[in-house]
Amino acid sequence: MNRLNTMESRLTSSTRAQNVESFLQVRKRSEEICRPLETEDYVIQSMDDVSPPKWHLGHVSWFFETFLLSRFAAGYKIYHEVYPFLFNSYYEAIGARWSRPKRGLLSRPTVREVYAYRKHVDQHMASLIDTRMAAESREFSFLLDLGLHHEQQHQELLITDIKHILSINPLKPAYAEPPQPEAGGVPLAKFLQMEGGLCEIGFEGFGFSFDNERPKHRVWLDDYTICNRLVTNREYLEFMEDGGYTQPLLWLSDGWYAVTDRGWNSPMYWEQQEGKWFVFTLAGLQPLNPDEPVSHVSYYEADAFARWSQKRLATEAEWEHAATVLNVSPAHGNFVESENFHPVPCRDSNQDPLLQMFGDVWEWTCSSYLPYPGFQPEPGAVGEYNGKFMSDQMILRGGSCATPRSHIRKTYRNFFQCDKRWQFSGIRLASEA
Amino acid sequence: MNRLNTMESRLTSSTRAQNVESFLQVRKRSEEICRPLETEDYVIQSMDDVSPPKWHLGHVSWFFETFLLSRFAAGYKIYHEVYPFLFNSYYEAIGARWSRPKRGLLSRPTVREVYAYRKHVDQHMASLIDTRMAAESREFSFLLDLGLHHEQQHQELLITDIKHILSINPLKPAYAEPPQPEAGGVPLAKFLQMEGGLCEIGFEGFGFSFDNERPKHRVWLDDYTICNRLVTNREYLEFMEDGGYTQPLLWLSDGWYAVTDRGWNSPMYWEQQEGKWFVFTLAGLQPLNPDEPVSHVSYYEADAFARWSQKRLATEAEWEHAATVLNVSPAHGNFVESENFHPVPCRDSNQDPLLQMFGDVWEWTCSSYLPYPGFQPEPGAVGEYNGKFMSDQMILRGGSCATPRSHIRKTYRNFFQCDKRWQFSGIRLASEA
Amino acid sequence: MNRLNTMESRLTSSTRAQNVESFLQVRKRSEEICRPLETEDYVIQSMDDVSPPKWHLGHVSWFFETFLLSRFAAGYKIYHEVYPFLFNSYYEAIGARWSRPKRGLLSRPTVREVYAYRKHVDQHMASLIDTRMAAESREFSFLLDLGLHHEQQHQELLITDIKHILSINPLKPAYAEPPQPEAGGVPLAKFLQMEGGLCEIGFEGFGFSFDNERPKHRVWLDDYTICNRLVTNREYLEFMEDGGYTQPLLWLSDGWYAVTDRGWNSPMYWEQQEGKWFVFTLAGLQPLNPDEPVSHVSYYEADAFARWSQKRLATEAEWEHAATVLNVSPAHGNFVESENFHPVPCRDSNQDPLLQMFGDVWEWTCSSYLPYPGFQPEPGAVGEYNGKFMSDQMILRGGSCATPRSHIRKTYRNFFQCDKRWQFSGIRLASEA
Amino acid sequence: MNRLNTMESRLTSSTRAQNVESFLQVRKRSEEICRPLETEDYVIQSMDDVSPPKWHLGHVSWFFETFLLSRFAAGYKIYHEVYPFLFNSYYEAIGARWSRPKRGLLSRPTVREVYAYRKHVDQHMASLIDTRMAAESREFSFLLDLGLHHEQQHQELLITDIKHILSINPLKPAYAEPPQPEAGGVPLAKFLQMEGGLCEIGFEGFGFSFDNERPKHRVWLDDYTICNRLVTNREYLEFMEDGGYTQPLLWLSDGWYAVTDRGWNSPMYWEQQEGKWFVFTLAGLQPLNPDEPVSHVSYYEADAFARWSQKRLATEAEWEHAATVLNVSPAHGNFVESENFHPVPCRDSNQDPLLQMFGDVWEWTCSSYLPYPGFQPEPGAVGEYNGKFMSDQMILRGGSCATPRSHIRKTYRNFFQCDKRWQFSGIRLASEA
Repeated sequence: MNRLNTMESRLTSSTRAQNVESFLQVRKRSEEICRPLETEDYVIQSMDDVSPPKWHLGHVSWFFETFLLSRFAAGYKIYHEVYPFLFNSYYEAIGARWSRPKRGLLSRPTVREVYAYRKHVDQHMASLIDTRMAAESREFSFLLDLGLHHEQQHQELLITDIKHILSINPLKPAYAEPPQPEAGGVPLAKFLQMEGGLCEIGFEGFGFSFDNERPKHRVWLDDYTICNRLVTNREYLEFMEDGGYTQPLLWLSDGWYAVTDRGWNSPMYWEQQEGKWFVFTLAGLQPLNPDEPVSHVSYYEADAFARWSQKRLATEAEWEHAATVLNVSPAHGNFVESENFHPVPCRDSNQDPLLQMFGDVWEWTCSSYLPYPGFQPEPGAVGEYNGKFMSDQMILRGGSCATPRSHIRKTYRNFFQCDKRWQFSGIRLASEA
Repeated sequence: MNRLNTMESRLTSSTRAQNVESFLQVRKRSEEICRPLETEDYVIQSMDDVSPPKWHLGHVSWFFETFLLSRFAAGYKIYHEVYPFLFNSYYEAIGARWSRPKRGLLSRPTVREVYAYRKHVDQHMASLIDTRMAAESREFSFLLDLGLHHEQQHQELLITDIKHILSINPLKPAYAEPPQPEAGGVPLAKFLQMEGGLCEIGFEGFGFSFDNERPKHRVWLDDYTICNRLVTNREYLEFMEDGGYTQPLLWLSDGWYAVTDRGWNSPMYWEQQEGKWFVFTLAGLQPLNPDEPVSHVSYYEADAFARWSQKRLATEAEWEHAATVLNVSPAHGNFVESENFHPVPCRDSNQDPLLQMFGDVWEWTCSSYLPYPGFQPEPGAVGEYNGKFMSDQMILRGGSCATPRSHIRKTYRNFFQCDKRWQFSGIRLASEA
Repeated sequence: MNRLNTMESRLTSSTRAQNVESFLQVRKRSEEICRPLETEDYVIQSMDDVSPPKWHLGHVSWFFETFLLSRFAAGYKIYHEVYPFLFNSYYEAIGARWSRPKRGLLSRPTVREVYAYRKHVDQHMASLIDTRMAAESREFSFLLDLGLHHEQQHQELLITDIKHILSINPLKPAYAEPPQPEAGGVPLAKFLQMEGGLCEIGFEGFGFSFDNERPKHRVWLDDYTICNRLVTNREYLEFMEDGGYTQPLLWLSDGWYAVTDRGWNSPMYWEQQEGKWFVFTLAGLQPLNPDEPVSHVSYYEADAFARWSQKRLATEAEWEHAATVLNVSPAHGNFVESENFHPVPCRDSNQDPLLQMFGDVWEWTCSSYLPYPGFQPEPGAVGEYNGKFMSDQMILRGGSCATPRSHIRKTYRNFFQCDKRWQFSGIRLASEA
Repeated sequence: MNRLNTMESRLTSSTRAQNVESFLQVRKRSEEICRPLETEDYVIQSMDDVSPPKWHLGHVSWFFETFLLSRFAAGYKIYHEVYPFLFNSYYEAIGARWSRPKRGLLSRPTVREVYAYRKHVDQHMASLIDTRMAAESREFSFLLDLGLHHEQQHQELLITDIKHILSINPLKPAYAEPPQPEAGGVPLAKFLQMEGGLCEIGFEGFGFSFDNERPKHRVWLDDYTICNRLVTNREYLEFMEDGGYTQPLLWLSDGWYAVTDRGWNSPMYWEQQEGKWFVFTLAGLQPLNPDEPVSHVSYYEADAFARWSQKRLATEAEWEHAATVLNVSPAHGNFVESENFHPVPCRDSNQDPLLQMFGDVWEWTCSSYLPYPGFQPEPGAVGEYNGKFMSDQMILRGGSCATPRSHIRKTYRNFFQCDKRWQFSGIRLASEA
């Protein structure tokens, strides 16, 4: 999907046609993700963090309608007067909105009506992209890119939300086939010695980036080590069997509160039956594979595991520095395109120094989500996209098995509250040198 | 539906066939009620009191499967091993169950699967009813009757729950056409002088009754008056305009707490637009008709209105006594069969003394839901049907526009907590003589 | 305390002096109850139902100030302009008030200041009672009686609230010495056969009564039995050991919810140490005496115990009828004057037919707290005293070991919600004849 | 209080005597702070964040008992077996403890008993400090210092908690006299240009420091500006009058939620009467002084004010760097010793470049509370002191009018959640250079 990585001018009609094609491809992907669903699955909000799939499908369309069609398509009329109220997520500048934790109380619009809305938006967007104005406007071009990356973020959320929706159902339905097991063993954990110094992190250059990745700026790094691969279920089980969930001294205070208050005794989606561990996956309930990277852990669990290991998590600067220095790219990770919908065991055919940096699971860092020095939110209403969430969250890096490959970068900053577990989130260890 | 009113022996095959027919008719009615729904409407639980329509459809089928098929149909196997867990409402004797306020979190079984379950149960029930055993067993016969009355209760709940599900949606969808207005005026309110004394209330004799209506027993009644008709919206508006919702001295203490805590300032489903009152109905939002009986009021509101009127509500004994003495029958009320799905203005063509006693709205009495002297719950698990709810609820009498005509009796005791408003519940005044 | 039982005219100065004396005696009693307290004990609100002792002491004084001094004492000025806000309990007609569950957040006024307030009110009240106006005004006379009975009710609450305040403290402080054990055995439980018929209950005649006890009215009673004594701890332990708290079928639905939600597995204040039961009393933690009447049970527990016993609770009419027919009087019960602050084992020296009807523990009846036919609340603001609580509560009869002897009558109606347990509340069984 | 700033050996008896003296001085100070209290004020927990003063007094004593007497005083016996349970704050390694939000439910031990406990601890501590062992043990020495700094932290909390306890009382009691107004005007706000580069922050050297201030480490700072003084009430009022609390775009998302959910429309303790602003202080309710630094604002408010000002808050590194470079010391700030118990207007007699850095109000930085690179918690149970709180909190710097002067350092890191407002917390602006 080259479209997402370039900002070149698109003056020729063939470029414009290609842009339309790229747009429709991303849009179609969202619908493909929903193909295995029953109508009823589209409607449910299984917990406050989850949105009903039909809401996701409507919301991303509203994004294009609000920030592009309404503004750039001459004479465009809002598709339905109530939809902006229903599908606005959190844009205060845009207006009032339906309460987030009540998204699962809406039977209407129906799934069919939401698809009709999508079709309408797609047609108007396709026409608009194919105009000279669009091809020549830097702002349009940016907002189109933003809209497409936005849709990709919701594609990831669709997968994690569908997983949760199915997981709470006693019938334990499956969404897909389980991934094919690959032969081979997990490489030994090695802590790579990294030389610090005055480094630079953050995005600069051509191609799309979010405002929160900018500006590129200097940071001082002491020497550090970073582990060559993710923590596995086998290693996490050792932590559990060593009383990880019963020793308060391993935990942050708020983490221990979460453990006791919510009765956590394993990662999310794990369940024990007759002494054996199983894990709910998008392929239904499966026996736990000890070689897979541990997933669906909170920051608190990642932090406690690291403390138990006498290590720590990496800072986001260390993570990005290591990826840069060791020249790791997102080209070959386990992303959504592999259709595993699940992290897979680490295999090291090429004897790369640093494995699993991209795809599989988002990696909790020990950095808070704060503005980079000199941070400027995007101008206009889309300035609410990232900046206003810069408190009480931690940074995750690298993307997951639910992330579109073209969506991720080494400078990409994901962020969630410390107690969130429903994303594919895992652990990579680091330490002082 | 003669089936529901007789307990005669059914030895001949034609009787058996007729019983099968009656059974299927009641079952079909539940599905007819759902016909206007979109698939998505079946899934939602718009508040804790509401159940998703597909849950209702499954639960009533589970009732037949559990209490009849499993017991009387030789070799019958449970349709799906998880369904008893999903569709048990509150029968502790039967086993564990899915948490009630989480019924809206279940996308599966799908609506289609629930209909398949119904079909399966119907086929096996039809066969079973048509056996000699069934025809000769008093217990089977009673449980069949109970199951059918149970299904009728859920037909009423389907209507009130669908109303709520649609009401909270900003798109304000309609379920049916509005009722045709009938010419004429509302008769004057008259308080009929009733002579009390030593009376009898409660059910005795042939035909079906719930355990909570029995035994027939003596009560002493002082002389009293009872109003010839229900309180209208016009009268209730007077109460509102006289500051009804702002004067604590008109209210029970718990009622005033509900008013202030929940911000009540009108009956449920009312909303004011530019100074005019509208009301959400199963035909969508409609201008308030002042002639209609007020509906969707809580006990607290009924009680406050009565106090404001310097009257009171009737006791359940007075209500039943008046219906008996004045010989009022449920034959001609505004029940679900009229397909109004809404109370209609009182019309008095026959100059009956006591109007609107049956149908339109359930009438709050000032009697708590307590066992009659000598009350015995049904033996077995169905003993949980009524008896265990005999605390913290008030009695309502007479049925509503959502009640099947064949379901109601003058001894019928409905019951809800004082703060419930989503049923069609209204007000009839009474007083000391 | 003759004062409380007469309404005779008090024209002579000696009568007036006697009235002053009676007033001061009741007032002094409240302070005597608090004598064993530390200053800190006066301040705490250990749960929402409890009020800090200094609040009780202030509130009852506010009652006299508001309903008598402000109205009848010429030129009387409110002691402190903020006190009416702080000490109004629930009188909407009087004005705004401090939130009830936040009574424990007020360190000021101090205990000393509250006692000064009491002294001020006492002096002004003593002067006022000693005027001719007071002696001749029926309304004053009634309100004075009401204020004194009100103070007595708070004397009982002081004791139960102090008990709770001390009970939650890990230091388990004692308020008084334990009662002296009396020799003898508990009489056998006997169910007395009572002949029903058309009976009368409710208060009529001279002397003080609350509005909710009136008017005297007819009720029909079927024949019934009533147990000669209260249920003992020994009997309640049998229920517990027979799985009383683990069998949902013994419980009302709301009761079972309370059991599971709050983890009830014994009456309040019981605790098990190394297999033996202890009970927290106003004399600290004591070994459970199986002969004592069971106390601190909710309505739900009383009801479940009765169901397990294949009996039921008495209605309030049966209770009052039995007390009348068998001529039981409150003269010799275990009231607060005995300074046991705890129920004592039943002893039957006189071979009375009906024992423990008064004192020891309030007896849950199976009657809801509803207005008697023809009920009229007192005129004016004191009309809020009783009437507005007539929903969602059950009637208790007979007084307890914390009740002043002169406060109780056979027509006296106490009322609490079904789940309350911090009063001295127990069980007497009854049944159909 | 030289004692707190040295770690020199104390071998001579005169040194030991001096150490005893220093210990007793700090201890006495806590009691002096409580002198204006009524007994009742010691008992209240006015919100979850507040602890009752008697709890503070007991807890700091328990700290010495647990970490020093029990360990170093031969044969020392715990004063009361239940006190460790009551007075442990959050040390999981030490054992179970009374629930924090229920500290206000304990009337016992009484205030008198807590003072007796203090006296007991003081006597044993004085003896212990005066032993040769103590004088020679580095660990003892460190723990003694820690205990004294711990007590100083609770002295600050005593003041802020007493303020809250008094503030919620409608009687609005005062704790002290208001500060004397000083003549003069507030200096103009100037943004000092600061040169960044590779800098060092964190504690190193002799004297006491907390583990979270260590190790000293390098950080890269871009050039920045920092304001020469704190934001005043006048400036904050401009923000308010410009709609600061009604414009969501000025706020972090969680901040806006706090504003709407809690109805914030001014700093804590402000109230408007007839159009004029008043503020509750430890001298009771006072007219708002526009020259004073704004206080009792949350991080969210500080951040929103900074955004409205088109500035930002300083990072903690910038704050510490500026204090170092400009050589600001805590010698002359408005600390607790000035007995203002309130921030005072900025006065600039010496024309210092950087004013109000120490004392008056804690200054919110835009840095999260995270471990410094190479952070090591103290060994043993006191390792729980700081490290386990390193999530979901922001750093504040500089101390307040409630901080003891000898307690603060330029490397000192205070930390609170973003929504906390009951500390003396204010705003200093900064920006990119």
